[in-house]
Amino acid sequence: MIRGLVLGVLAALIASVAALPAIAEPVTYARFVVDGETKVGEVRGDRVLEIKGGLFGAREISDRTHKLADVTLLAPVVPGKVFAAGLNYRSHAGMSGAGKPEIFYKSPTSVTGPDAPIPYPEDASSLHYEGEMVVVIGKAGKFIAEADALDHVFGVTAGNDVSERSWQGSDLQWWRAKGADGFGPIGPYVVRGLDPGKLMLETRLNGETVQREETSGMLHDTAAIISHISRHVTLSPGDVIFTGTPGSTRSMRPGDVVEVELQGVGVLTNTVTRERP
Amino acid sequence: MIRGLVLGVLAALIASVAALPAIAEPVTYARFVVDGETKVGEVRGDRVLEIKGGLFGAREISDRTHKLADVTLLAPVVPGKVFAAGLNYRSHAGMSGAGKPEIFYKSPTSVTGPDAPIPYPEDASSLHYEGEMVVVIGKAGKFIAEADALDHVFGVTAGNDVSERSWQGSDLQWWRAKGADGFGPIGPYVVRGLDPGKLMLETRLNGETVQREETSGMLHDTAAIISHISRHVTLSPGDVIFTGTPGSTRSMRPGDVVEVELQGVGVLTNTVTRERP
Repeated sequence: MIRGLVLGVLAALIASVAALPAIAEPVTYARFVVDGETKVGEVRGDRVLEIKGGLFGAREISDRTHKLADVTLLAPVVPGKVFAAGLNYRSHAGMSGAGKPEIFYKSPTSVTGPDAPIPYPEDASSLHYEGEMVVVIGKAGKFIAEADALDHVFGVTAGNDVSERSWQGSDLQWWRAKGADGFGPIGPYVVRGLDPGKLMLETRLNGETVQREETSGMLHDTAAIISHISRHVTLSPGDVIFTGTPGSTRSMRPGDVVEVELQGVGVLTNTVTRERP
Repeated sequence: MIRGLVLGVLAALIASVAALPAIAEPVTYARFVVDGETKVGEVRGDRVLEIKGGLFGAREISDRTHKLADVTLLAPVVPGKVFAAGLNYRSHAGMSGAGKPEIFYKSPTSVTGPDAPIPYPEDASSLHYEGEMVVVIGKAGKFIAEADALDHVFGVTAGNDVSERSWQGSDLQWWRAKGADGFGPIGPYVVRGLDPGKLMLETRLNGETVQREETSGMLHDTAAIISHISRHVTLSPGDVIFTGTPGSTRSMRPGDVVEVELQGVGVLTNTVTRERP
């Protein structure tokens, strides 16, 4: 009888372990151009393995691989919708954003990738960086409960919510202040399996650290933001959410190099470049 | 010699007439479902003729036609980006929008079609109609001069820029106040060849006329809006621009029927319907 009990307990233990989700080793994905064609792939060490079926589909690994050094990285996804949260770090906005997530849209044409120029428009006068963690949606949904929200996350990447402060102050809405073409670089990779609440985020301007805080400092965490957005707007795979910037920001001038580093993801580097119509 | 002069003048006259653009008879296009498939077509009388190659492509008329009564109309286009102009009629906003077009984004998921329900969200308290002319972009562009802007217009349709006034007042930006799912019905058709500056626009709430003004009352006309947007954001075929609402608006309740009629386009009818998560 004791033997039966031991066996029963063992069986229950084995069943409970089998029911646990597999411990996720983070997986890194890239979108890139090689030989004039755009592909997606899984990054392993200094190589990228092409995958078929898209990031949000089968993700079947093919036998075609490339050296990372031989490909040109693009924004890791092509979003249909670009959401952003404002006033989401106490260090940036005090407690003014504490009530609920304050959401706005950036234009999909604002999204560019690693090493893309950040345009300095002719009529701009106060162009600021905003280093941020960016969440990539992997599963569609509406009315998503906070408890289920992280199931809708594909992964995270780094982003720069570039902001023209004079337009932000003078326009009725932020459509160009934060939505102009090229004002939303993301990358270099989207990484699956990281905890979005515990990643160090650092921004450097010409090599000098100008923002540094862990994403645990967000007033509204990733789950709260996703749940709030989805009460009103349906989320789709590939949609991205800029989750807010910590600390303070400064203006940038043409020629300045901005790096946004997100722990576990890497460094997104962009250079401010005068835009000529 | 006189005969030669007469012939020369005649030849010049003929050349100048040939160089005039053809007088455009407006053409009406629909997107619709028939037998479970989504199609686009050209509307003639009470029939719709399927076209191949898409609205922004070859628009080759096929020999497949349907009675309009047998198809279900959808939003005439599926926009990648949805722009809107605020404060664009003196009758609505006085001269507060006179300086420059004041643009904002609606979510692509706000766009629905004729007869789609307008969702009355659970936590809404002040849901208003805004009858508007909606411009559909047909040709991509950035830095479009006002003089060239109408070349980028595919056609126009009617739209309802549904607005939740309490969110519009309390949120940092208008993302849900004007961008919630279903807050942007457009239709019933997109019509090519109309003058967007001379169309009567009328909104009816449960049959009563509640807004009525010609689009000539816009503070910033279609060309000015397109030029301004394209200074900052690249326009693409299928993008739509809500051009602002005239006069005043009232709140709607579940069960209310709103019609937006745009001269030359037809009547867009939608019923407010309580949204249940």
